[in-house]
Amino acid sequence: MSNTGDSVIVRFVTEDDKEGWQGLWRSFQDFYSVSFPNELDEFNFKRFLDPNVKMWAAVAVDSTSGKIIGMINFLSHMTTWDFKDKVYINDLYVDESSRVKGVGRELIQFVYEEADKLDTPNVYWCTDESNHRAQLLYTKIGYKAPKSLYKRNGY
Amino acid sequence: MSNTGDSVIVRFVTEDDKEGWQGLWRSFQDFYSVSFPNELDEFNFKRFLDPNVKMWAAVAVDSTSGKIIGMINFLSHMTTWDFKDKVYINDLYVDESSRVKGVGRELIQFVYEEADKLDTPNVYWCTDESNHRAQLLYTKIGYKAPKSLYKRNGY
Amino acid sequence: MSNTGDSVIVRFVTEDDKEGWQGLWRSFQDFYSVSFPNELDEFNFKRFLDPNVKMWAAVAVDSTSGKIIGMINFLSHMTTWDFKDKVYINDLYVDESSRVKGVGRELIQFVYEEADKLDTPNVYWCTDESNHRAQLLYTKIGYKAPKSLYKRNGY
Amino acid sequence: MSNTGDSVIVRFVTEDDKEGWQGLWRSFQDFYSVSFPNELDEFNFKRFLDPNVKMWAAVAVDSTSGKIIGMINFLSHMTTWDFKDKVYINDLYVDESSRVKGVGRELIQFVYEEADKLDTPNVYWCTDESNHRAQLLYTKIGYKAPKSLYKRNGY
Repeated sequence: MSNTGDSVIVRFVTEDDKEGWQGLWRSFQDFYSVSFPNELDEFNFKRFLDPNVKMWAAVAVDSTSGKIIGMINFLSHMTTWDFKDKVYINDLYVDESSRVKGVGRELIQFVYEEADKLDTPNVYWCTDESNHRAQLLYTKIGYKAPKSLYKRNGY
Repeated sequence: MSNTGDSVIVRFVTEDDKEGWQGLWRSFQDFYSVSFPNELDEFNFKRFLDPNVKMWAAVAVDSTSGKIIGMINFLSHMTTWDFKDKVYINDLYVDESSRVKGVGRELIQFVYEEADKLDTPNVYWCTDESNHRAQLLYTKIGYKAPKSLYKRNGY
Repeated sequence: MSNTGDSVIVRFVTEDDKEGWQGLWRSFQDFYSVSFPNELDEFNFKRFLDPNVKMWAAVAVDSTSGKIIGMINFLSHMTTWDFKDKVYINDLYVDESSRVKGVGRELIQFVYEEADKLDTPNVYWCTDESNHRAQLLYTKIGYKAPKSLYKRNGY
Repeated sequence: MSNTGDSVIVRFVTEDDKEGWQGLWRSFQDFYSVSFPNELDEFNFKRFLDPNVKMWAAVAVDSTSGKIIGMINFLSHMTTWDFKDKVYINDLYVDESSRVKGVGRELIQFVYEEADKLDTPNVYWCTDESNHRAQLLYTKIGYKAPKSLYKRNGY
């Protein structure tokens, strides 16, 4: 559990956070102009809570209002380059009204700490080339790898 | 099993391919100016051959000489964006003397076909921004996603 | 002459602005980790003021304090793609303490208006890929062209 | 005048090259999916031949057939960063059937030499991010600057 300033707490999701998480998950989809079926929410949440599945979610909670204002979903997977897994931050979202307060940074910092505890400290993520607001943060807590990402046609 | 022209066969690695695969794995490391311990070769090969581990390797074999001239290592991992896994091409390497003959394309095509069989058809990979030779191929069989890749400092 | 909010005026430089412009020109060099000889200041300023030279500079002036808080240097040059010249914004700098107040936008807007008056409305500029703060603005008043810039080795 | 292997000569255009140059200029436009009026051909050619205009064109001529197989158009313009002009390679095109023979390299080399003679050795150019074939050459005779190019909306 980590603390941003005096009023935000970052912690793993629990069963009770589902609704709050879903609200941000919807906003996140809007931001990326994608739309997932509701069943995927259920499936993801089950994976987050299952101790046997290496997929997790953390939320940032405003400790005054109790409101969930940020979420970060991450998972770990193998790599041929190491004995250890790598941790991939799949999604990060902070409520529009809570931006520029260090919440995004705290969420990533939470992942770093969990990755360290898991002894898989190698963490990476992707963002839209044109998302400069996000990258103002990312260049402070990480670095841009000089890589191009390719996808199979149609996917 | 797929066939490039009349002389190259692409197939999953078997126990007997270890030495040939290692030769390309070394050249691949040289190309990227990295160096992995030999124990990682063993660990990877064990994962490739273990039917319970979702990491695989295929090789391109010159059917005349029997020589292994190309390798592709891939794995599958979860994503919060889908019920299905995504397939990640971790490494692709074709022997320098066998370039520009469609071997790289056949190796990726092999992964596409296996991904389809696994019902996880979503395939992606990364390459150095400055590797234009590789991208001459990649733009034909895939597309560049407008994403920037970030890594945790120190990794 | 254009006005940001009620207190900033953007206008072409005059002989009297030399010192103020030089202060920002120094800060600009610091930002880009370059260092030009003082003689270049003189040479540039002469070009800005010479009606026969298609190089100009405008400054943003805080109308309360009279202080110069921003500068933009631009020039026009031929292109084989058009009968008309293109306008290149060579340098843009806003005093650190005056950021996020729309001064940068007003300076570029001034160039757009002058470019229109000159009947050479095609305006372009470059920025560091990693300068996300600047690009937060640039994506609002322009668009990123999918181009790579190459330079002769040694320059 | 420079020589690629034994059969290609690179030289400035003369009045007689107009038709050959125009053929490549058309192909160049097709490649970039643009279309300029014929009057622009005339205007450009006039500028190339006018000793008072800092815009030039060179062609690569197959010395056996006498055919023009490549063209390069360049110009020089001011910069606030230097007393000297910079040379901008506006267009480069090599006939499709003459690719991969070093003609592109010879054309750029010609510009480098002329830029040196003019005492304005700083040369730069742009290319499409996705033009990997061109960049296979450009990374050998130049380097990619880590810059993003922005244009005014509508241009």
